Amino acid sequence: MSLSKQPLILISNDDSIYAQGIQVLTRLMSAIGRVVVVAPEKPHSGMGHAITQDLPLRITSSNIFNQKNHHIEAYMCSGTPADCIITAQTYILKHVKPDLIVSGINHGKNTAISILYSGTMAAAIEGALDGVPAIGFSLNDISPNADFTHTEKYIVDITKKFIQHKIIPNIALNVNFPSKQQSPIRGIKICRQADVSWEKFLVKKKDPRDREYFWLNGKYYQEENRKDTDEWAIAHNYVSIVPCQYDLTAYSVIPELQDLWSK
Amino acid sequence: MSLSKQPLILISNDDSIYAQGIQVLTRLMSAIGRVVVVAPEKPHSGMGHAITQDLPLRITSSNIFNQKNHHIEAYMCSGTPADCIITAQTYILKHVKPDLIVSGINHGKNTAISILYSGTMAAAIEGALDGVPAIGFSLNDISPNADFTHTEKYIVDITKKFIQHKIIPNIALNVNFPSKQQSPIRGIKICRQADVSWEKFLVKKKDPRDREYFWLNGKYYQEENRKDTDEWAIAHNYVSIVPCQYDLTAYSVIPELQDLWSK
Repeated sequence: MSLSKQPLILISNDDSIYAQGIQVLTRLMSAIGRVVVVAPEKPHSGMGHAITQDLPLRITSSNIFNQKNHHIEAYMCSGTPADCIITAQTYILKHVKPDLIVSGINHGKNTAISILYSGTMAAAIEGALDGVPAIGFSLNDISPNADFTHTEKYIVDITKKFIQHKIIPNIALNVNFPSKQQSPIRGIKICRQADVSWEKFLVKKKDPRDREYFWLNGKYYQEENRKDTDEWAIAHNYVSIVPCQYDLTAYSVIPELQDLWSK
Repeated sequence: MSLSKQPLILISNDDSIYAQGIQVLTRLMSAIGRVVVVAPEKPHSGMGHAITQDLPLRITSSNIFNQKNHHIEAYMCSGTPADCIITAQTYILKHVKPDLIVSGINHGKNTAISILYSGTMAAAIEGALDGVPAIGFSLNDISPNADFTHTEKYIVDITKKFIQHKIIPNIALNVNFPSKQQSPIRGIKICRQADVSWEKFLVKKKDPRDREYFWLNGKYYQEENRKDTDEWAIAHNYVSIVPCQYDLTAYSVIPELQDLWSK
């Protein structure tokens, strides 16, 4: 915990500061602790863990989360979700470590390998890199007007548990919720990341000058559907929680490679 | 192997099709197999695993890698490194799987947690997602005119070994080379990703209208320096090879979380 009794909670997302998901999250978090929001000024879905090196960043203070008689400290950043966390930690919080970083609530699920492309989870993992407990929340509904009401009690429960219990450091939780249409929720499942992929394709179009351009698109396909995966959990109306690490080393392959290069 | 006897090798990078590193890599690979290059039209360092969802992609054929009497199939893509691999696999190669994807040679090292921000490694991991063996090569020298000559025999050796031996699928190799100034190279070490971080900070400036803007910057610091890490290896003049996976699940934490939520 920080100096004050209230935990300091840093909030970001990838759908922009104007998205409904971050409004819900900020309202819930301000009942738990002191809140600082630093979120992108425009949507950054699919941005992965990108950071901005070749352009300068702009930071603008915002009052859009202010509640009646209650000021919520909030900023828009011109960069990516990872930029927002770096900006918050270094410049806005001046290296005072928050007790928790939360990201979301994303409009759309971030299960399986979607985590690689997810700006929501990049913000959480950026926190974990500095040893700050972090949670990314995502809803299985991409609508800008998605209904988040069924997620609220779970978000509060998960957040409080994560603050109260000393979880192993450098871990970010990837939390996915079934959509409102899928409710009632059957409970929480601790899962692993499913090995499910996207079948990607390009959609070809022509511009008014008759030049080709392409939209990147894809559809999800199930390579596996085991009961211990995040995909299975949210498909069966459970909240999925996957603990995520940033060490990508495939330790099991090391002996094979050592053998190959010792010949 | 694909239909022809020659292996089909897909090449990309994040420093753009005009970078010197990809020129060296393309020359080396065209002595090993049939080569197709799909690379970004401009630099995308720090882009991580970003994909382009909100803008269309443009694809332009290029002849800059052509050698005397030898045409090298090459394309520029307006998107990110991950977009390049998706474009190549779905549109240019029309779902014919390459035997290998190579990415780089990056101007700058991608050791430790830099892999999260690395467009070079995102291109390799995007290949691994589809079960294509993939290697990202990076040099510990950010100069646009870096000297790659000392890396060449290692790149050929690693590439041939990786094609010839059936390595466990869905693994991308992260290969880092010491700079030319560090040579002679002492050999190859199979390593794990070091838990080394960046101390990040923002550099504040003012534009001609007296408005603040910020450059994101950082300096590397050693949190650990154990002999089995990629950081240690390249600091001691070894080539480091880290096998990387895209499953971020922190399996060791699952029991603790299950216990917490069963209470």
